[in-house]
Amino acid sequence: MARGRFITLEGGEGAGKTTLARALRDALQAHGLEVVLTREPGGTPNAEALRELLLEGETGRWSPVAETLLLFAAREDHVRRLIEPALARGAWVICDRFSDSTRAYQGAAGGLEAARITAIEQAALGAMAPDLTVIADLDPEDGMARTRARGEAVTRFEAHPPQFHARLRQAFLDIAAAEPKRCVVLDASQTPDALARAALDAIETRLGLP
Amino acid sequence: MARGRFITLEGGEGAGKTTLARALRDALQAHGLEVVLTREPGGTPNAEALRELLLEGETGRWSPVAETLLLFAAREDHVRRLIEPALARGAWVICDRFSDSTRAYQGAAGGLEAARITAIEQAALGAMAPDLTVIADLDPEDGMARTRARGEAVTRFEAHPPQFHARLRQAFLDIAAAEPKRCVVLDASQTPDALARAALDAIETRLGLP
Repeated sequence: MARGRFITLEGGEGAGKTTLARALRDALQAHGLEVVLTREPGGTPNAEALRELLLEGETGRWSPVAETLLLFAAREDHVRRLIEPALARGAWVICDRFSDSTRAYQGAAGGLEAARITAIEQAALGAMAPDLTVIADLDPEDGMARTRARGEAVTRFEAHPPQFHARLRQAFLDIAAAEPKRCVVLDASQTPDALARAALDAIETRLGLP
Repeated sequence: MARGRFITLEGGEGAGKTTLARALRDALQAHGLEVVLTREPGGTPNAEALRELLLEGETGRWSPVAETLLLFAAREDHVRRLIEPALARGAWVICDRFSDSTRAYQGAAGGLEAARITAIEQAALGAMAPDLTVIADLDPEDGMARTRARGEAVTRFEAHPPQFHARLRQAFLDIAAAEPKRCVVLDASQTPDALARAALDAIETRLGLP
């Protein structure tokens, strides 16, 4: 059995990553693939326990570097227990957020130097990286409007000033520019169906499909 | 106010670090110093929450690298919220276990490469390091006998084979040999009073006392 492929979805809040992940799972399954759909932070019991520690309590409970250490502890567990075994048995793994979110949130938007994040990443994961990263790019104001339209709390947006969200968006675009072979940026202002078709096209072009 | 001094106590189980820490606190207070006595993993509410995650559950719940990431997340919180503010106001800080325990337990005894631990340490703490590290050195068999004589559970010993404890002891001796200016090795088979006097002598010689 050939090793599976590891696809990550990245972007700001309200960009439609969760809907996109499900659409891609269905489309890849229709190609006869075993698909594992997961998300971060979390994905395994240990990583979910860390997710709770990260999301509980007041803003600023953890420093950006402590958050990064906790996120990579969770990620190492997720990779070792769930993602790697799935890839090894030939499954394709779709993960909603991965290391690029740490670079964008704790790094570019949170102020932690990129070199410190890279050092922690290499210590935690070695050379393990996604085969393809789909960045769902959206104006943060549209993301907030969509979140509100879904009837969800916009507290996550309002906890940060607009420039935080602008830095976040730019951080994902900068990651894509630095690693164009791994990353594809898609316009997330499209309809969910059009976004899913564009992502599937990118997967077929970059990774091939059976 | 001059900056305080940061003293860490290291060694295997049953070497008498807790008793030594209290004796040193009393002796330094008798010199008119403010003393903060703390221990790892733990020392702040965030670090204690991580301590619980590390100690709960079965052996092998976390990989050595995930343990190391969690320990340094806890340590960064402990340093930033408790140790650094104490040092800045002139207090002397005595900490029962610090980074050397991660080097010994997760590194030498647990099999994680030293370079990965160093990378995580530098990302988490930068150049922050103890002014003096007292290593309480004891034959692991004596440590187990003492623990048993205190009526405490010896499950921590029995969870690991004898060669684990031998590697741990050697790891602390190797750290002291590599960093002789920072570290002093003391014979922990002495009486508690004699060990405390030897440690206080080392503190006076290395750091000076008011």
